[in-house]
Amino acid sequence: MRLYDYLPSGNGYKVRLLLTQLGISFERIEMDIVDGATRNPDYLNKNPNGRIPLLETDEGIHLAESNAILFFLADGTPMLPDRSLDRARVLQWMFFEQYSHEPNIATSRHWIQHLELTEERRARLEEKRALGHEALAVMEAHLATNDFFVARRYSIADIALFAYTHVAPEGGFDLASYPRVRAWIERVASQLRHIPITQG
Amino acid sequence: MRLYDYLPSGNGYKVRLLLTQLGISFERIEMDIVDGATRNPDYLNKNPNGRIPLLETDEGIHLAESNAILFFLADGTPMLPDRSLDRARVLQWMFFEQYSHEPNIATSRHWIQHLELTEERRARLEEKRALGHEALAVMEAHLATNDFFVARRYSIADIALFAYTHVAPEGGFDLASYPRVRAWIERVASQLRHIPITQG
Repeated sequence: MRLYDYLPSGNGYKVRLLLTQLGISFERIEMDIVDGATRNPDYLNKNPNGRIPLLETDEGIHLAESNAILFFLADGTPMLPDRSLDRARVLQWMFFEQYSHEPNIATSRHWIQHLELTEERRARLEEKRALGHEALAVMEAHLATNDFFVARRYSIADIALFAYTHVAPEGGFDLASYPRVRAWIERVASQLRHIPITQG
Repeated sequence: MRLYDYLPSGNGYKVRLLLTQLGISFERIEMDIVDGATRNPDYLNKNPNGRIPLLETDEGIHLAESNAILFFLADGTPMLPDRSLDRARVLQWMFFEQYSHEPNIATSRHWIQHLELTEERRARLEEKRALGHEALAVMEAHLATNDFFVARRYSIADIALFAYTHVAPEGGFDLASYPRVRAWIERVASQLRHIPITQG
């Protein structure tokens, strides 16, 4: 398998982490998204939406969207529960991640790390700060009675949420008031074959 | 089953439409999201993320996130393909819808219909206009060689994308330059037991 990736990306990291934990070997192709590498015609042929990560199977099939890739790779493994309702819950948390969490927490981190902070971006960051804390509060509440997000065990729902939560401080989010989130971060990081986001 | 819904919402409409096409009877509870009905403690108990739609099963289980609900209800029916790769493709388009399509096209429609257009919102609408057209262009390109989004047949991927695409003009998106999207809208609207977004 081949993974089109970008090292600082939490979305790319989700797939890297799962592939590693499943023991699937893969070739990683680093794409400089800030420099427009995902907007060249050759790449757009592979992923018309021009984003990473993108999985290329040995049969040459391309699959985009980090959480769809997780679901595909985890199907039939212990990383994705079998029961229909549990699978729906995994998806519920993954859609929560892409809609309520990533656009606020990940985008803040990306702007702070890579883009010039114009007056307008500063104002937008304030709004993202508030919405990101709402998402963290939803996670904190769920973890009051759960060690992991779905079916009381480690799954791709945890990977999807871990990716940008554990680096939230890089986006200006202080996790001090989320003790359960911090304990869960430790639990996820202590799983077998865990790798850090900095590891390609 | 019980569906917490809001009639103008495309996310709610997705679930209403699928339930109707599957012939599943349900009770619809209208929630006035603009008036804060989804932010009261009783509702937050059911869905801590405070959004609609929310599905309540006869066993009293709550499931949130429109596309997770679609996946749950369609599992085992002709509306969701069986093959693992086809399922991943359905999810790919559903995550595309929630990340690249809905926040631009649906949000523009919501702001224009329900919120005051401040100077700042006008500027943001310009940005959403550009990103929304990028999403429509990705759909138009895919439909050049496909009648439906996945596995050459009508599925929940089409429902997820149809919900806000067919009302995109209400958000200021002219579909004139997307003839394949318009033809696909006609195809989806002509499916058995189709209902319009205005029907509860």
